[in-house]
Amino acid sequence: DFMHALENDIKPAFGVSKDEFDSYISNGIIVWGQPVTDVLEEGQLRIRQTVKSEMTPLVSILIEGPPNSGKTALAAHIALLSKFPYLKFCTAQTMLGFSELAKCQQLKKIFEDAHKSTLSCVVVDELESLLEYAPVGPRYSNNVLQTLKLLLKRPPPKGRKLLIIATATHRDILEQLGLLPSFSKVVHLSNMSSGKHILHVLNEIEHCFNDNEMRILEKKLHDKKVWIGIKSLLDQIEVARQADENSRVLRFLTQLEEIAGMT
Amino acid sequence: DFMHALENDIKPAFGVSKDEFDSYISNGIIVWGQPVTDVLEEGQLRIRQTVKSEMTPLVSILIEGPPNSGKTALAAHIALLSKFPYLKFCTAQTMLGFSELAKCQQLKKIFEDAHKSTLSCVVVDELESLLEYAPVGPRYSNNVLQTLKLLLKRPPPKGRKLLIIATATHRDILEQLGLLPSFSKVVHLSNMSSGKHILHVLNEIEHCFNDNEMRILEKKLHDKKVWIGIKSLLDQIEVARQADENSRVLRFLTQLEEIAGMT
Amino acid sequence: DFMHALENDIKPAFGVSKDEFDSYISNGIIVWGQPVTDVLEEGQLRIRQTVKSEMTPLVSILIEGPPNSGKTALAAHIALLSKFPYLKFCTAQTMLGFSELAKCQQLKKIFEDAHKSTLSCVVVDELESLLEYAPVGPRYSNNVLQTLKLLLKRPPPKGRKLLIIATATHRDILEQLGLLPSFSKVVHLSNMSSGKHILHVLNEIEHCFNDNEMRILEKKLHDKKVWIGIKSLLDQIEVARQADENSRVLRFLTQLEEIAGMT
Amino acid sequence: DFMHALENDIKPAFGVSKDEFDSYISNGIIVWGQPVTDVLEEGQLRIRQTVKSEMTPLVSILIEGPPNSGKTALAAHIALLSKFPYLKFCTAQTMLGFSELAKCQQLKKIFEDAHKSTLSCVVVDELESLLEYAPVGPRYSNNVLQTLKLLLKRPPPKGRKLLIIATATHRDILEQLGLLPSFSKVVHLSNMSSGKHILHVLNEIEHCFNDNEMRILEKKLHDKKVWIGIKSLLDQIEVARQADENSRVLRFLTQLEEIAGMT
Amino acid sequence: DFMHALENDIKPAFGVSKDEFDSYISNGIIVWGQPVTDVLEEGQLRIRQTVKSEMTPLVSILIEGPPNSGKTALAAHIALLSKFPYLKFCTAQTMLGFSELAKCQQLKKIFEDAHKSTLSCVVVDELESLLEYAPVGPRYSNNVLQTLKLLLKRPPPKGRKLLIIATATHRDILEQLGLLPSFSKVVHLSNMSSGKHILHVLNEIEHCFNDNEMRILEKKLHDKKVWIGIKSLLDQIEVARQADENSRVLRFLTQLEEIAGMT
Amino acid sequence: DFMHALENDIKPAFGVSKDEFDSYISNGIIVWGQPVTDVLEEGQLRIRQTVKSEMTPLVSILIEGPPNSGKTALAAHIALLSKFPYLKFCTAQTMLGFSELAKCQQLKKIFEDAHKSTLSCVVVDELESLLEYAPVGPRYSNNVLQTLKLLLKRPPPKGRKLLIIATATHRDILEQLGLLPSFSKVVHLSNMSSGKHILHVLNEIEHCFNDNEMRILEKKLHDKKVWIGIKSLLDQIEVARQADENSRVLRFLTQLEEIAGMT
Ligand SMILES: Nc1ncnc2c1ncn2[C@@H]1O[C@H](COP(=O)(O)OP(=O)(O)OP(=O)(O)O)[C@@H](O)[C@H]1O
Ligand SMILES: Nc1ncnc2c1ncn2[C@@H]1O[C@H](COP(=O)(O)OP(=O)(O)OP(=O)(O)O)[C@@H](O)[C@H]1O
Ligand SMILES: Nc1ncnc2c1ncn2[C@@H]1O[C@H](COP(=O)(O)OP(=O)(O)OP(=O)(O)O)[C@@H](O)[C@H]1O
Ligand SMILES: Nc1ncnc2c1ncn2[C@@H]1O[C@H](COP(=O)(O)OP(=O)(O)OP(=O)(O)O)[C@@H](O)[C@H]1O
Ligand SMILES: Nc1ncnc2c1ncn2[C@@H]1O[C@H](COP(=O)(O)OP(=O)(O)OP(=O)(O)O)[C@@H](O)[C@H]1O
Ligand SMILES: Nc1ncnc2c1ncn2[C@@H]1O[C@H](COP(=O)(O)OP(=O)(O)OP(=O)(O)O)[C@@H](O)[C@H]1O
Ligand SMILES: [Mg+2]
Ligand SMILES: [Mg+2]
Ligand SMILES: [Mg+2]
Ligand SMILES: [Mg+2]
Ligand SMILES: [Mg+2]
Ligand SMILES: [Mg+2]
Repeated sequence: DFMHALENDIKPAFGVSKDEFDSYISNGIIVWGQPVTDVLEEGQLRIRQTVKSEMTPLVSILIEGPPNSGKTALAAHIALLSKFPYLKFCTAQTMLGFSELAKCQQLKKIFEDAHKSTLSCVVVDELESLLEYAPVGPRYSNNVLQTLKLLLKRPPPKGRKLLIIATATHRDILEQLGLLPSFSKVVHLSNMSSGKHILHVLNEIEHCFNDNEMRILEKKLHDKKVWIGIKSLLDQIEVARQADENSRVLRFLTQLEEIAGMT
Repeated sequence: DFMHALENDIKPAFGVSKDEFDSYISNGIIVWGQPVTDVLEEGQLRIRQTVKSEMTPLVSILIEGPPNSGKTALAAHIALLSKFPYLKFCTAQTMLGFSELAKCQQLKKIFEDAHKSTLSCVVVDELESLLEYAPVGPRYSNNVLQTLKLLLKRPPPKGRKLLIIATATHRDILEQLGLLPSFSKVVHLSNMSSGKHILHVLNEIEHCFNDNEMRILEKKLHDKKVWIGIKSLLDQIEVARQADENSRVLRFLTQLEEIAGMT
Repeated sequence: DFMHALENDIKPAFGVSKDEFDSYISNGIIVWGQPVTDVLEEGQLRIRQTVKSEMTPLVSILIEGPPNSGKTALAAHIALLSKFPYLKFCTAQTMLGFSELAKCQQLKKIFEDAHKSTLSCVVVDELESLLEYAPVGPRYSNNVLQTLKLLLKRPPPKGRKLLIIATATHRDILEQLGLLPSFSKVVHLSNMSSGKHILHVLNEIEHCFNDNEMRILEKKLHDKKVWIGIKSLLDQIEVARQADENSRVLRFLTQLEEIAGMT
Repeated sequence: DFMHALENDIKPAFGVSKDEFDSYISNGIIVWGQPVTDVLEEGQLRIRQTVKSEMTPLVSILIEGPPNSGKTALAAHIALLSKFPYLKFCTAQTMLGFSELAKCQQLKKIFEDAHKSTLSCVVVDELESLLEYAPVGPRYSNNVLQTLKLLLKRPPPKGRKLLIIATATHRDILEQLGLLPSFSKVVHLSNMSSGKHILHVLNEIEHCFNDNEMRILEKKLHDKKVWIGIKSLLDQIEVARQADENSRVLRFLTQLEEIAGMT
Repeated sequence: DFMHALENDIKPAFGVSKDEFDSYISNGIIVWGQPVTDVLEEGQLRIRQTVKSEMTPLVSILIEGPPNSGKTALAAHIALLSKFPYLKFCTAQTMLGFSELAKCQQLKKIFEDAHKSTLSCVVVDELESLLEYAPVGPRYSNNVLQTLKLLLKRPPPKGRKLLIIATATHRDILEQLGLLPSFSKVVHLSNMSSGKHILHVLNEIEHCFNDNEMRILEKKLHDKKVWIGIKSLLDQIEVARQADENSRVLRFLTQLEEIAGMT
Repeated sequence: DFMHALENDIKPAFGVSKDEFDSYISNGIIVWGQPVTDVLEEGQLRIRQTVKSEMTPLVSILIEGPPNSGKTALAAHIALLSKFPYLKFCTAQTMLGFSELAKCQQLKKIFEDAHKSTLSCVVVDELESLLEYAPVGPRYSNNVLQTLKLLLKRPPPKGRKLLIIATATHRDILEQLGLLPSFSKVVHLSNMSSGKHILHVLNEIEHCFNDNEMRILEKKLHDKKVWIGIKSLLDQIEVARQADENSRVLRFLTQLEEIAGMT
């Protein structure tokens, strides 16, 4: 009937929000090493499970990793890979200034909309921010926590499927809050840990270092241990670019020592 | 008189909500071992006690067990077994976004309705969620707690009987909150602890592994110790189904090692 | 004058609420041992003191004991024994969903009404529930606490007398909250501690065990130590009644071992 | 002018509230020993100081002592001794159900009224109750605390004098709350500590024990150490009165052993 | 223009509030020793700095010392010495019953007014009371704290000067609250510590002791150590005055032993 | 279109608020040593990065250092150096009396305005004050904290650039609150640590000491260790100026010993 049609009239969300999803991958996805491959494979497996499963209409994964490791970009990327008709990116940034209650209602609305599409994928970015978590106290919104706990376990109506991809920085916090058991799978995204990872990135970025410089960097970096997120690395590259040609290789290496703990 | 008729006019609730109860048992009840039998027997004994008792018109049991052990499905199953004219499933999922007060009022309403039927059974699912319990702090709704405490001990009016079946994951939390003494009986639901339990399930699920595969699995699993809930096992089976025929037995066993601590 | 008449027009409360008081003694009072006798004697002494005293127009006692020990039934029983023209039973059950303030006002109203009768008796059941006490935190309503403290020490107007009978489960909590000094006397109600207490009860309850069974039970129970409240015992008896004749004695004894710590 | 007259039109408060003050001394003042004499002398000295002082128009004393020691009666008694034209008794009992703010306003009003009379005396009974102090937490009304602190140090307008007499049970609590320095003098009221104190009281109360009984009691009590408040003692005497003539001396002594720690 | 004139139209505040300032020095300023001289000198130096400084248009000092040491009187005295056209005395006494917000607004208003005069002096008396500080908890108004922190560091508009004189009893509390760095200078006001300080005061107060008595007191006091605030000493003198001539020297000395720890 | 024009119509903010920025540098910037040079260089590098970067449209730095070290003046100075068309100074002083929510909205507004300009620079002064941080408790506004966290990481729309310069006194507090990872770079501003730094300042300030005095000071100070902020030093110089010519050098040195820990 009409009311039903109205309520279930989901516009092809994909076309609408693809731009938004792209904005979270502003510098593309560089497959710099195994950790990236692992997360991508897990994502693809879960997409398939969501589509074909008979017994599990609700699949939820959590991508957790250090700041700047690329969690948000990868979550958005996997969501785009699914090509599900309903895609939604859910972030605290768009709820700035909302009351706790308004946030909960917004979250509820997003999931209720998702339940109206046959195949849906919802990204829930930065759980700690949604929870308004602050380590001093600690403080957080129990309202949002309870809402998330329930939504993460609420199965879609018969015949519909839902894939949830969440991201978080502090696995221990979610553990303490009892959020982990709400996920089908928790995937760890590591920082880059070897000079080879960095070289991989440098090779893929244009207008960065010239061939000569790259040779020096390869020699210096290929056997080093480092600890740096992809977003920080891109930042360091950007800073190096501003330096004059004579000193920029040295500056870049010094920065890696300071920030990525390279020795 | 009319007002009285109106207030006590309970529609045959069974017919109405049977569908809802069924939805909590979406994959049926597989009697995979003694723990399931025990809970079912206790349930049936309590149904009889409620019907026949002279001195105890109020009977309440709590089914507690680890996440995914099948608590909700078993509680719903026992409620359906009672065939009482008033059946009600009470869960935080339907109270999302309610204020504490609204929740309390809803709970009160459900029990007051139950008191109007000669024989009633109320399932109270996931006490921790109803209590909005969060382990960091910890935080919980004292309003809901006090309401539950009182409702769990409020005897139905003369000549009426009430059976309450509650579920919970964290027995220790309820103990600390002083909720345990409110129950006539606390029943523990264990996870599957032996490979035989798993084999039992595999044998009952269709289109899962072929005969050859089953033989391998029987050899590998029959003498193993595991620790996994029925809901997780169904999830693992679903994932294995997506894998290609060559690797799916191996994959399934690997997953059991990772998730069910099988060695 | 008229207003005065209206305000002081206390309807013979006894007749009205006797039914309510009876409902708290649904299974009668079985004098199973010395602890019951002691509480009853203390109650009668206090009734006499309230009636005859010149210097102490306000008398208040607290009956405290473990869950299910029969506190509420005994408090109601003593109140009925007093035959005072104003009798009131005050319990959190009738204030479910009240705000803290509404509770305080209700309590105030009850005591103000009591002050209007020459001889009044107010039962205040389950102090912990009225205080909304929860051990995690701990939390409680300081508003209710302050109100109770004041009401428990507020003397009735000249020429009137008031007897207060309160019940509580956790003496230590009331001690910590500073409520104990508000009472003229604190009386402890013990659980049944000996098999003889249980036999006493069995002998007084009809249609329970036949003569043969009783003989076995007497032999098994007469020299045992136990720890069980009268309400729990009645529950166990009820369960045993449902079992078939062959096993019910054994079952009853097994239950006593489990629940009453009998060895 | 008129408004001024209205605002300063203090009705002779003495006549009006003398009855109220008397009600707090329902069983008179028995000077049972040195502790009573000391408090009374301090009171009289302070009355004189208030009247004659040039440099200290505000005098405030705190009478603190154990529950039932007679603090309230003595404070009321001293206030009556002053014969000041403005007398006010300030107690939490008359503010039951007031919000914190309403309490503060009431307190402010009482002191502002007191400031309008040339000579005023305000009794502030049971500071802990006014502060809504509860030891678990602990909790108290900081609003009332701040209000009391300011009012206890607010000097009356030029040419007017104010005597404040407060009572409290827990000196340590007031110390922790920083209220003690607000008083000119803190006076301790002790419990009765010797059998002679008790005999003194027994000798002053009529229709209690006959001459024979008194001789026995004198022999038993004259050299004993005890610890009991006057209000409790009056309670024990009242209970003894209800007992039959044969046993009442023994019963009274037994009670003293139990309650007053007499050995 | 007109609006500007209106907003900046500060009435000669000095004339208006001089009476109020005088009321805080009801018993004058007796320069009983070095501590008083030190505070007065610091005050005068800061007045000069405020008037002449080019780089520091905002000068703020905190006078801190034990209860009754004379902080308020000295702060008021220094403010009067400045003869600045805008003088304001800011105390919690005039904000009794204000909400936190109203207090903050009042404080803001006072400072904004001060900023409109070329030379202003604001006394902020008893910081702890303004902050509603209570040591149990502890509790305080963070709103007032943040407001004070900002106001104490807010420079007046170009060409205007502001001197702030605050008083406080508990230096450690202000330290913990992070208020100390907000002051240009923290000055300690000590209690009287030697018998000579007391003799100095006795010599300046009329109608106190006669010559004979003074000779005895000088002999007794001149080499003693004491610890007493000027306000308490004035109180003791007043009490001694009420005693009869024979005993008043002895009484005064006994009181000093009790209260001022004299030995 | 028109609405767009309206919303994006940023008036040349530079001209408008340059005066405000100047007011935070009321005594100019004296480059007294390496710490100042370092902060200035970092600032200039970041300005360039903001202008030229392709991958990092959002650059944020935090200047942290002890009270009075000159943080605010340096942050304002760097912002002016950028010559960006949109400049905004964001401080708790202009939000005094705002509710938490109003503060958050104000912050959001400032950043949304900044996002409308191609090149923007926002100074966020005194993070602790904005956060209403108080060390006792501790207390702070989690609303402001969450808002700042999100705003510090919210990238400007495509094609626009934003430089954020924040200041703070307590690095450890921000670390505990999890704010540090929100910054591209944290720069430490040290106090003056050597007598040479002080001499540098003295040489740049006019009408301070004469040549003779300077020679003495140079001898006394050139090899000393000190610990003092530039703002405090200017204060000390101002005080010394008020002293008479004979003693002012000595007084200044004494003050340095007291306040700057010089030995
Ligand atoms: N393999 C990759 N994985 C993720 N991001 C990548 C990858 N390669 C390049 N990028 C780029 O790196 C950036 C990753 O930033 P992103 O915001 O996803 O990090 P994050 O871990 O979510 O950071 P934060 O901890 O602040 O939330 C994006 O600009 C993205 O385009
Ligand atoms: N013996 C069984 N007991 C319970 N559930 C079973 C059993 N056999 C099969 N199932 C199926 O397993 C699933 C159990 O899920 P259920 O939601 O009851 O678990 P749960 O313990 O309540 O999980 P949670 O901890 O998330 O609340 C249901 O789909 C049910 O149909
Ligand atoms: N001697 C007795 N004392 C009290 N109750 C008795 C006694 N004999 C029989 N009973 C019956 O036992 C039951 C006592 O239950 P009651 O509610 O008073 O226990 P309770 O201690 O108040 O329990 P709770 O701890 O739940 O408040 C009543 O049904 C009462 O009729
Ligand atoms: N010397 C006495 N001092 C005080 N009260 C006395 C004395 N002699 C007799 N009384 C009587 O004793 C009773 C004292 O009770 P009162 O309420 O003053 O005690 P209290 O210490 O204030 O008790 P609470 O701790 O409950 O506040 C009054 O009835 C009073 O008339
Ligand atoms: N040298 C002095 N310094 C301060 N007060 C003095 C001095 N000499 C005399 N006085 C008198 O002593 C009294 C000091 O009281 P004041 O209220 O200032 O003390 P205070 O330290 O502020 O007390 P509180 O701790 O209660 O705030 C005033 O009456 C004042 O006139
Ligand atoms: N090199 C310098 N750096 C900073 N300020 C300087 C410098 N040289 C002179 N100044 C002057 O010193 C003062 C520095 O005060 P500013 O308010 O910036 O200190 P702050 O560290 O922000 O203090 P607060 O800890 O109170 O916030 C300003 O008046 C400024 O003009
Ligand atoms: Mg992210
Ligand atoms: Mg469940
Ligand atoms: Mg009870
Ligand atoms: Mg009292
Ligand atoms: Mg003062
Ligand atoms: Mg600053």
